[in-house]
Amino acid sequence: MEYLEQIGRQAKEAEAVLRTLDSRRKDEALLRASEALVSGAEEILQANAQDMAAAREKGMSQGLLDRLALNKERVAAMAAGLSQVAALEDPTGESLSMKPRPNGLLIGQKRVPLGVVGIIYEARPNVTADAFGLCFKAGNTVILKGGSDALHSNAAIVNVLQRALLACGLPQTAVQLIASADRQVTARLMKLNEYIDVLIPRGGAGLIRTVVQESTVPVIETGTGNCHLYVDASADLKMAVEILFNAKTQRIGVCNACESLVVHEEVADTFLPMAADRLAEKQVELRGDARAMAAESRIRPAREEDWGCEYLDYILSVKTVRDIEEAIAHINRYNTGHSEAIITNDYKNAQRFLDAVDAAAVYVNASTRFTDGGEFGMGAEIGISTQKLHARGPMGLKELTSTKYVIYGNGQVRP
Amino acid sequence: MEYLEQIGRQAKEAEAVLRTLDSRRKDEALLRASEALVSGAEEILQANAQDMAAAREKGMSQGLLDRLALNKERVAAMAAGLSQVAALEDPTGESLSMKPRPNGLLIGQKRVPLGVVGIIYEARPNVTADAFGLCFKAGNTVILKGGSDALHSNAAIVNVLQRALLACGLPQTAVQLIASADRQVTARLMKLNEYIDVLIPRGGAGLIRTVVQESTVPVIETGTGNCHLYVDASADLKMAVEILFNAKTQRIGVCNACESLVVHEEVADTFLPMAADRLAEKQVELRGDARAMAAESRIRPAREEDWGCEYLDYILSVKTVRDIEEAIAHINRYNTGHSEAIITNDYKNAQRFLDAVDAAAVYVNASTRFTDGGEFGMGAEIGISTQKLHARGPMGLKELTSTKYVIYGNGQVRP
Repeated sequence: MEYLEQIGRQAKEAEAVLRTLDSRRKDEALLRASEALVSGAEEILQANAQDMAAAREKGMSQGLLDRLALNKERVAAMAAGLSQVAALEDPTGESLSMKPRPNGLLIGQKRVPLGVVGIIYEARPNVTADAFGLCFKAGNTVILKGGSDALHSNAAIVNVLQRALLACGLPQTAVQLIASADRQVTARLMKLNEYIDVLIPRGGAGLIRTVVQESTVPVIETGTGNCHLYVDASADLKMAVEILFNAKTQRIGVCNACESLVVHEEVADTFLPMAADRLAEKQVELRGDARAMAAESRIRPAREEDWGCEYLDYILSVKTVRDIEEAIAHINRYNTGHSEAIITNDYKNAQRFLDAVDAAAVYVNASTRFTDGGEFGMGAEIGISTQKLHARGPMGLKELTSTKYVIYGNGQVRP
Repeated sequence: MEYLEQIGRQAKEAEAVLRTLDSRRKDEALLRASEALVSGAEEILQANAQDMAAAREKGMSQGLLDRLALNKERVAAMAAGLSQVAALEDPTGESLSMKPRPNGLLIGQKRVPLGVVGIIYEARPNVTADAFGLCFKAGNTVILKGGSDALHSNAAIVNVLQRALLACGLPQTAVQLIASADRQVTARLMKLNEYIDVLIPRGGAGLIRTVVQESTVPVIETGTGNCHLYVDASADLKMAVEILFNAKTQRIGVCNACESLVVHEEVADTFLPMAADRLAEKQVELRGDARAMAAESRIRPAREEDWGCEYLDYILSVKTVRDIEEAIAHINRYNTGHSEAIITNDYKNAQRFLDAVDAAAVYVNASTRFTDGGEFGMGAEIGISTQKLHARGPMGLKELTSTKYVIYGNGQVRP
């Protein structure tokens, strides 16, 4: 697979330049790339029109067509994204610690780029510019493998970005697109340990599973969220209804949407009818256990597989529990380690939930929908990690870095 | 593979207890386990005698026999290791940040245990106690898969540890040993994503390669070190000789030993004879390029494969370079991302080397042999990571943790 080897080598070569590039030059390049997207919009839209025509011909669904489609506004949004990233603080170069040892060695730990980041993603061409921007700002080169349906769009965007890099005197191979729809190429990419430091899959559960299963390059698992909202006996029930309505219905197709309601049985009879009324405004289907059905007649029976299901739809499972420990055990059994919330007015229960629930983000009295790089104040995000290694939760620039020990000596040898 | 499923489930159950266990109870258990190793020494030594007899029968080499052998002193050292870990600061529970957002949400990031750690290792039975101690102190349960040659020894050690945990009212499954030499079991272990959060292989390059290639569980790659020492034109040559002698010969079989010398050609004629004289005290074989051979007649010709070789032996490759950039390029091409050193008195070159060389630890005027958890002041280490994800360099307790976002609200919903 000579083609991938070459891409890998070129990424490593560009990495050596980016490793020691100062923030000012990176920001200049990002702003130049942002302008290039705006002035190159016509070229990008023509390429996108090709992709759209082919997608319509093969009968792509309206939802996917909408993800694939670009227009002037969407290109302008990509450009604005790059300017925003330029304005963020560069995380690299910072000393995290620096301490002398008894033998006089001065040992420091410094934040450095990860190196070469591979991104495997699906239909949205805007990921192409976003992923480049974040990776580049953190000093990384990026190898992109987008969906085959967006190949022309992605190639046009990468061309524009590469020209901007060249114009700044930087290696254009700081961003590279794998211009092949061959599955063998993707399979080989996932084993390119010699050149790639980390792979981040962005897309549906199927894509993520494939990458986790097949990759020998370290992977950061992102995305799936079977998020719970637990309404404790002491909850402010009106607040609980509004938070539930927001977490379930504000946007249904996202990983931080609520998929399961857990209710303390003491408040089930009062709360579930209130919740069902509010959720009826969006025709949310409720599937619950026997105790929940007894409390509210609009609840249909849930099956075992409902507890583990990320619906991404107007459906909510409803589980009743005798106490907070049962709630915690249920959540830890079925969740995907994404975002979990408790609605309570009990101090001890709030702390217990925060400590005992195993997830990237744990909330008291707020909607799970806040798990997001922008909402967390990171400026932007490359994805939301649901694994525990390296990064957990929304990943911003800092999560695209590694560290390096830097040691200043004056002749020390080990006794 | 019902056996592994059960081990995995039990590890998860114990994890839920450890997740919220305070430091005092963890330290009590570690001290109890330390005492139990001392009082259970006889039982452990009997088991070890079985392993030793079998190993001798099958003709195991003297070096491996020495690694496998236990005696009273070695058991006492394991016990002392657990007491030392008890005295280290517990990294979990610490808030790394806590900030209010404009909408009133208070968002914090907290250090938490990784969860379930799998360790796959080879002949040394002392890893069994050491790995348990570090994982447990950081709130993790551990699943151990040791070498089949040490099965009786490891089982006896784990039995003693488990009894100590039970005596403290803690789940004995906080440490579990896979009591099977079946390769199928190991293969399945590496795909146990549902239960294991991270796998750390400890051993030779072959073991590590296998785990990286076959595991779908996230892996932290440890260990191999093709470490370089670059002697710059401005180096204090006497200091350079002593650091080289230490880095190459103080202990040859370890990953932070120097395997390759890189010399600025301006000082090659003076330095290489000095270095060859000193290294002759340990009969170190030198393999170099033509310029190096011209400078010192005891140097034999190096082949291309020498540059990438981790000898772990009394052999050193010698490369001459025209300038520091050539040195950096050579090192970044052939190194394994472990430890690299420059000997120089030039400020600019020191900084350039620290910035541009891509490795876990980069030294100025000191021996690469210092890359070690103890020497870095971590108290103990579980291994030395040569990857960039999650942890890089010596891994102590902090590197056995993850993080969790903790969010305090008062009814916030996402607009």
